[in-house]
Amino acid sequence: MKSNKEKRQDNIKEEARKLFIKKNIEQATFAEIAKNSKVGEATIYRNYPNKGELAMVVAMDYVTDLVNDLEERLSNKKDTHIVKFEKLLDYYIEVFINKPDYFIYMEHFDNFIAHSSEKPSDFNEYEKSLYNIVKVLCDVYSGEKLDNSIDANINVEMAVYTFNITFISLCQKLLLRGKITSTDLRFDAIDELKLMKKIYIDYLKVK
Amino acid sequence: MKSNKEKRQDNIKEEARKLFIKKNIEQATFAEIAKNSKVGEATIYRNYPNKGELAMVVAMDYVTDLVNDLEERLSNKKDTHIVKFEKLLDYYIEVFINKPDYFIYMEHFDNFIAHSSEKPSDFNEYEKSLYNIVKVLCDVYSGEKLDNSIDANINVEMAVYTFNITFISLCQKLLLRGKITSTDLRFDAIDELKLMKKIYIDYLKVK
Repeated sequence: MKSNKEKRQDNIKEEARKLFIKKNIEQATFAEIAKNSKVGEATIYRNYPNKGELAMVVAMDYVTDLVNDLEERLSNKKDTHIVKFEKLLDYYIEVFINKPDYFIYMEHFDNFIAHSSEKPSDFNEYEKSLYNIVKVLCDVYSGEKLDNSIDANINVEMAVYTFNITFISLCQKLLLRGKITSTDLRFDAIDELKLMKKIYIDYLKVK
Repeated sequence: MKSNKEKRQDNIKEEARKLFIKKNIEQATFAEIAKNSKVGEATIYRNYPNKGELAMVVAMDYVTDLVNDLEERLSNKKDTHIVKFEKLLDYYIEVFINKPDYFIYMEHFDNFIAHSSEKPSDFNEYEKSLYNIVKVLCDVYSGEKLDNSIDANINVEMAVYTFNITFISLCQKLLLRGKITSTDLRFDAIDELKLMKKIYIDYLKVK
C-alpha cells in the first residue's frame, strides 16, 4: 500500500501533468500546481527543487508506461520482425487515439528541455528509457540476426530509427492541428497515419 | 527606397525574429526587443498592439519568402509532377541546411498559436499563404489532370499533403535533436531526410 507521502507525491505529479499539458511547462507555476493539488508551495519544493525536476518525473512516468506496454505487445516470439514493427506503429496509433496526452506532453517536454540551460538530474536515465523504446523495435537493435521478413539489402537500423522518430513527430503535429490552421483539417488524421504505416512496411518488407 | 518608418519596422521585426528564435515567443518581451532594436517600447506598441501581432508579421515574412522561392523552382513547365515533388523535397532539405531558422520559427509559432486564446488579425491571410505552399506542389491541387509520372491508383492529393506535413515535422524534430537527447544523434539528419524522400517518391511514381 502507498504511504501518505507517496499519495501526496502522486497527487502533485498528476496536477503538474494536467497543468503542463494545458499551459505549456514554461507558463505553469508551482503556485498554481500547489493550489490545484491542495498542498503548500513549500511541500512541492521539498519534493522537487525546480520545475525542470518535476517535469522530468512526469516525463519518466509516461515513458515507463510506454516501454512496459510495448514490451508486452512485442513479446510474442512467433511474430516476425515485420509483424513486430507493424505492432509498434499500431500501438502508436492507439496512443494517438486513446492517450494523446502522451504525445502532447513529450512535445512540450522536448521544447522545454531544448530551451533550458540545465538538464534535470535524471535526464540520463530518461534518455536510456527512450532508447529502450527504439530497442524493443523488432529486436533489430539488440544485434539479433534479422529474420527473413525484412529486406536485408536496406539499412534496417537507420530505417526503423528514422520511421520511429518520423511517426512520432507526425502524431505530435497532427495533434496540434486544428488548434492551428483550419486548412490543416482537410484529411482524417488516422488515414494519414495509416498511409505512413503502409509505406514504411512496404519499404521494409522483402520484395 | 524605404522610408525611415519602414526601415525602423524592418529593424524591429529582425530583432524580434532573432529573440523569438533564441528564447521562444512566450519568453520574449517587448522590453527586450525594444532594447535590441534601439527604439522605445512605445514605438513597438504603436506598430504592433501585442506580441501575437508581431510574431504573426515575422511568420508572414518567412512564408512569403518560401512561397516565392518555391514558385520559381516549380515554374518549369517541362518538369513532370514527380520531378516537381522531388524539387520540393530537395528545397526543404536546402532550407534545413541553409535556413534552419525557418523551420525552428514555424515550430515556435505553431506552439505559440496553439496556446493563444486569440488568433492574430492577419491569421487568415497567413493560412492562405501556407496553403499556397501545398498548392504549388506538383499542381495536383489545382485540379489539373495528373501527368503519367505519378501512379493514378493512389490518392495523390492525400499522399502529397501527408508527405508535406510529415517532412516538415521531421525537419523540425531533427533540428531540435542534439539539443535534446544525445542518443538522437545516432544517424546523420541529411541521410534520414533523403531516406524519407526516397520512400515518398517510390510510393508516388508509376510502378
